[in-house]
Amino acid sequence: MNITPIADYHGPLTAKFGLPRQSGLAGSLDGRIVFRPEFRNPDALRGLSGEDGFDRIWLIWGFSEVPESKAWQPTVRPPRLGGNVRMGVFATRSPFRPNRLGLSCVKILSVAPDGSEIRVAGADLMDGTPVYDIKPYVVYADCFPEAATGFAAGAPQPRLKVEWETASPLSPEDTAALEEILALDPRPAYQDEPGKRYGMAFGAYDVAFTVADGTLTIKTIGKKI
Amino acid sequence: MNITPIADYHGPLTAKFGLPRQSGLAGSLDGRIVFRPEFRNPDALRGLSGEDGFDRIWLIWGFSEVPESKAWQPTVRPPRLGGNVRMGVFATRSPFRPNRLGLSCVKILSVAPDGSEIRVAGADLMDGTPVYDIKPYVVYADCFPEAATGFAAGAPQPRLKVEWETASPLSPEDTAALEEILALDPRPAYQDEPGKRYGMAFGAYDVAFTVADGTLTIKTIGKKI
Repeated sequence: MNITPIADYHGPLTAKFGLPRQSGLAGSLDGRIVFRPEFRNPDALRGLSGEDGFDRIWLIWGFSEVPESKAWQPTVRPPRLGGNVRMGVFATRSPFRPNRLGLSCVKILSVAPDGSEIRVAGADLMDGTPVYDIKPYVVYADCFPEAATGFAAGAPQPRLKVEWETASPLSPEDTAALEEILALDPRPAYQDEPGKRYGMAFGAYDVAFTVADGTLTIKTIGKKI
Repeated sequence: MNITPIADYHGPLTAKFGLPRQSGLAGSLDGRIVFRPEFRNPDALRGLSGEDGFDRIWLIWGFSEVPESKAWQPTVRPPRLGGNVRMGVFATRSPFRPNRLGLSCVKILSVAPDGSEIRVAGADLMDGTPVYDIKPYVVYADCFPEAATGFAAGAPQPRLKVEWETASPLSPEDTAALEEILALDPRPAYQDEPGKRYGMAFGAYDVAFTVADGTLTIKTIGKKI
């Protein structure tokens, strides 16, 4: 089956490094789902927001960073398990899967009256990610609080304290979102090299930080050249 | 993007008529997700079931009954609203959408040790539906009990009493599943013609029933010829 993007996601994370590893982990992270011209129609969003609307939507999107030519492997190593235990690909949300589809539940912040975009919070998507479908979140069909969730039980908790060695040039909202992401520890699993300098893109900025003794220190943040 | 089925769903509902209108509504309805040969691999399911496994999975599947040539419309008329109110397609789970992808959360009953199939309960899929992806259900990322869900708030309740004028030739489990489906009232929205005879396919059987005064009566059930 051939599927075609209806929209593109735009957010501050322009590279894979730093991406939350599941939706909802960085609830302050704002982004926009911008409809492509042929799917831009306020009627198509009627009933989604407003008084009798929905709080949340599902996004079915494409792991566009995984090359289409890459062969799928039956097992993957979830970062959650430290990156050294193999699990079946269908027991994980790994990007390296037969059809490179992602699934994320995000919060609706607002819907543009002209139908051009939906502002959302909590997406685990990279800037530029193609979106193939949007569906309303329906509690009776989608919400199972008692479901056993194997190795993914319990949300990953923020595990680093974030400190600034420089003033934040970002808005208070963006500062909060960046701190949330960094507190989750974006370093590769089991990488702990005190003093090592990491770089991360955030919106128009490049962020450099180090991690030692449970504290992440933002060393510099400057506009990309 | 081109996506290719990894599996096919097999269940007793071989036609659209009678299909539950969301997953989970007919919890007794059993089905099998049968992997296609190139995706049949027990390793790909490692960690999905068993002691440290998951209770539920997401299926991303194709509305294969909707012709690819059918143009999408910005609004649809959800059966839930009686079929006479128009809502934006992205505020509904309607099959008539730009990319004909469906999303359903089903319960895992068992996983075949040879990786050939997963037995599931509660699917709202027609027999023969292509499945494009399977992901584990993760409570912290997928479960939002407080989310407002607009016109879809509250699960549709069984609204008909089901009676048999003939003995059920089905197993007790299949009898229960059939009764669950019929109690949900499979008739088109707002159709109420006492005495009208409806036919429905269920596995190898054809079922004929009438509805009057809140009671659905199974008149005949016989093997398909």
